[in-house]
Amino acid sequence: MGYRERSWWGWGHADEALDDAACRRLAERALRPWLPIDGSVIPPPPDPLLPAPRLTPPPALAETFLGDSMSRASHAYGKAFRDVVRALHGDLPNPPDLVCRPRSEPDVVAALDWAEAAGAAVVPYGGGSSVVGGVEYRGEGPWVCLDLSRLSRIAEVDDVNRVVRVQAGVFGPALEAALEPHGLTLRHFPQSFEFSTVGGWLATRSGGHFATGPTRIDNFVEALRVVTPRGPVESPRVPASGAGPDANALFLGSEGALGVIVEAWLRVQRKPAARAKATIAFPGYSQSLAATRELVQSGLRPTNCRLLDPMEAMLNAGATDGRARLMLGFEGPDAVHLPAALEIVRAHGGVEIPRPPGSFREAFFRLPYTRDALVRLGLVVETVETACRWSRFEALHAAVLAAAQSAAPAGVAVVTCRFTHVYPDGPAPYFTIVTPGRRGAEVPIWDGIKAAVSDAIAANGGTITHHHAVGRDHRPWYDEEHSPLLRATLRAAKRTLDPGGILNPGVLV
Amino acid sequence: MGYRERSWWGWGHADEALDDAACRRLAERALRPWLPIDGSVIPPPPDPLLPAPRLTPPPALAETFLGDSMSRASHAYGKAFRDVVRALHGDLPNPPDLVCRPRSEPDVVAALDWAEAAGAAVVPYGGGSSVVGGVEYRGEGPWVCLDLSRLSRIAEVDDVNRVVRVQAGVFGPALEAALEPHGLTLRHFPQSFEFSTVGGWLATRSGGHFATGPTRIDNFVEALRVVTPRGPVESPRVPASGAGPDANALFLGSEGALGVIVEAWLRVQRKPAARAKATIAFPGYSQSLAATRELVQSGLRPTNCRLLDPMEAMLNAGATDGRARLMLGFEGPDAVHLPAALEIVRAHGGVEIPRPPGSFREAFFRLPYTRDALVRLGLVVETVETACRWSRFEALHAAVLAAAQSAAPAGVAVVTCRFTHVYPDGPAPYFTIVTPGRRGAEVPIWDGIKAAVSDAIAANGGTITHHHAVGRDHRPWYDEEHSPLLRATLRAAKRTLDPGGILNPGVLV
Repeated sequence: MGYRERSWWGWGHADEALDDAACRRLAERALRPWLPIDGSVIPPPPDPLLPAPRLTPPPALAETFLGDSMSRASHAYGKAFRDVVRALHGDLPNPPDLVCRPRSEPDVVAALDWAEAAGAAVVPYGGGSSVVGGVEYRGEGPWVCLDLSRLSRIAEVDDVNRVVRVQAGVFGPALEAALEPHGLTLRHFPQSFEFSTVGGWLATRSGGHFATGPTRIDNFVEALRVVTPRGPVESPRVPASGAGPDANALFLGSEGALGVIVEAWLRVQRKPAARAKATIAFPGYSQSLAATRELVQSGLRPTNCRLLDPMEAMLNAGATDGRARLMLGFEGPDAVHLPAALEIVRAHGGVEIPRPPGSFREAFFRLPYTRDALVRLGLVVETVETACRWSRFEALHAAVLAAAQSAAPAGVAVVTCRFTHVYPDGPAPYFTIVTPGRRGAEVPIWDGIKAAVSDAIAANGGTITHHHAVGRDHRPWYDEEHSPLLRATLRAAKRTLDPGGILNPGVLV
Repeated sequence: MGYRERSWWGWGHADEALDDAACRRLAERALRPWLPIDGSVIPPPPDPLLPAPRLTPPPALAETFLGDSMSRASHAYGKAFRDVVRALHGDLPNPPDLVCRPRSEPDVVAALDWAEAAGAAVVPYGGGSSVVGGVEYRGEGPWVCLDLSRLSRIAEVDDVNRVVRVQAGVFGPALEAALEPHGLTLRHFPQSFEFSTVGGWLATRSGGHFATGPTRIDNFVEALRVVTPRGPVESPRVPASGAGPDANALFLGSEGALGVIVEAWLRVQRKPAARAKATIAFPGYSQSLAATRELVQSGLRPTNCRLLDPMEAMLNAGATDGRARLMLGFEGPDAVHLPAALEIVRAHGGVEIPRPPGSFREAFFRLPYTRDALVRLGLVVETVETACRWSRFEALHAAVLAAAQSAAPAGVAVVTCRFTHVYPDGPAPYFTIVTPGRRGAEVPIWDGIKAAVSDAIAANGGTITHHHAVGRDHRPWYDEEHSPLLRATLRAAKRTLDPGGILNPGVLV
């Protein structure tokens, strides 16, 4: 594979972005029926030219620092809607002064030492795919983006213990490529897979592609190694321990605020051989919810249990009957359980129908490119996700739809919902919201919708995030969701590990 | 069920303890062939008479306090070998000054407030089944045992969300009895099940009876409510969240040192209908290990995967052929996977043999009574457990056997090993050690063996505890196992929640 340029402002590889003509085709074919858009396309931004950095790299680490405008601009934001639209408009008021790309753990240590002495904030950065403002510093003083992508070594693939020792900067495809010759896989496939790193997954407790069972990155962690401003922390490399609070739990979800995850020991597995899939249509949404609940409470473990509400089914699975769809799948030894699952769904009026053409998984990984095209077409387009108990879900679903509609200034928003994960006690619904924007006002429009929707989620028993992390955008609701005393213990941990408060200030604590 | 008296010095119900004659029969039939014992039986201790308490209960809470010798003596220790033998000898130098039995959460709050003002240490106590010195205060000043068994309300059995809301003092059988009419079960069965509480399970991250899948109490926790000296902490009642570090993780395994768990929301399930079991003999221990490893790495999930080493197979499964035994079981939808599992074990030379007579589970729950009889027969008898990677296990097994043998002053110790839990990256071996004691020197004899064995475990990549918790007995190895900085964050959490340091001093931090 030759080198392919990454987009500095949008998702993924620059050469995979939709060009102007493709954007216009998308508008004509897919959007006009639903949304009032004029079909004009915001041009891609010119190369950025930023003011000079306020920091000078230390000579000993000069080789690891970048200070050019393109490097700094491409590390200024994550990849949320509000990031892409701001970059598209050249709106980059607070880019990193420097980008540091350590080659080794000692480089990380040296960079933190230097930053603490220099009074610079440090924002750890994996693939930069945050959609919650996790990698965007919003404070005053100078800051450094600590891009960990050169920590890319896979030191050991241990087939006896089914463990891989991997540095934090390894991207999804590189990890799977290293495991493939051993017949192994991590089986962790977040939507950002191609452009996110092991360290980013761990720091944000990333959710995988599978609906049940081991899918969140937490499930695959045996041990971690973390560099903090006060020294290293490493957890024991044992399959399980009951010795005190879980030794990995403080850093899983620490979002760069407590330390820099530099290495992990992750559990890998053989690729499952068998697979069994089905698509089910239901007479109504309530029946589909009851069926999905019974299915996940039955002790069966579908790898895929993606319930699409009628709007999502129409837009993303071509369902013209206005009915919900359940995309069901089992893998490995569990493939034998599909008939038992179908028996459950049939009891709730579910009917097996032909599978829609095309690969969801392929479309899933391409969606962010389409999103960028929609942004260029002037739409406000973003996703919101949560998890709640089954008994709260119908009210939460209705409240999110109502909140998005009434907060959309155009008075019209397309809101769709699917389940990404399901648990015995409740689903993890994932909403996509699309509404026309107003050139230059896209960010406040989205922020208004986001606030209304987040309030609706909180009021209906949902968490502010099931797998997108907290970052800066979710802070107000995160702070409400957790007991003040629990948050005080996090602040105490932060003071212990990062007394200078240099690590990702504004995130979590 | 009428009231049955609990033994104040030994395990469980007083009327189930083996009497002198039964102890002698046990010696003749089961022990003489293996161990040099003289057959004399230590008499049960007389009722204790303790010096007056150094504390006076606050009048407002007088109804919740007990100060009589029997109440205090029965709360002085847990139920480890060293606890039972000391109580048997009337060796109770540091019993609680008072036992407090709060009726409600406000009582817990008031008790903590009073204790902090009175300068008394507080040791939270569930069923008192600790085997690691978790409920035995070893400091100087006065102390109160906070017995939570009156927090025994099961407020809600929620069949829609499959969640039960339960107070911390509920014992295993009471919880299952409340769930049974709903066709539900928690499916968490530690060996202490009958005499341990929900709060104790949570505070010690108790391990259940099943070998794989959801079995540790952590797996069943949706949310917790904890009273700390600085106020309450409650985690969100959602099926899953990626918002920051896991909100339950700080208190799971906190062993009463960070707060008093008063209530929990636990995930329950339907009782599995199907079951499939098999017993397998192997030509050698190495083959049995390879088979077990492949089995657990295959993606099959046996509920039971108890590999007995040849000594354990001989003593506890009547195996006279000197070969290892694997007790294998699948439940629920997974029952169909037994043939696939047998195919794997056969490839390693495993042969299915008739199942030994009797119920392991029944014997398992009765073992602690037998243990008490062995103590009265003058034996040193205790268990040690850990978890390590597969690649470390054979050396760890050999090292534990050698360490126990060479530390046993009689020069002879019976050491057996079985797996209680198995993970893709390694097993959780559980060792039973029996050796002749010397009247009055039992505790130092065991402490010497324990130290040697724990050193052997640590040197061979094992954790100091897979599911018995840290307590006071495991502290030196726990402190070595974890990074000093991680331990500093625990101390910081402790200072935040319990600045007076009244909660279970000496445990964890």
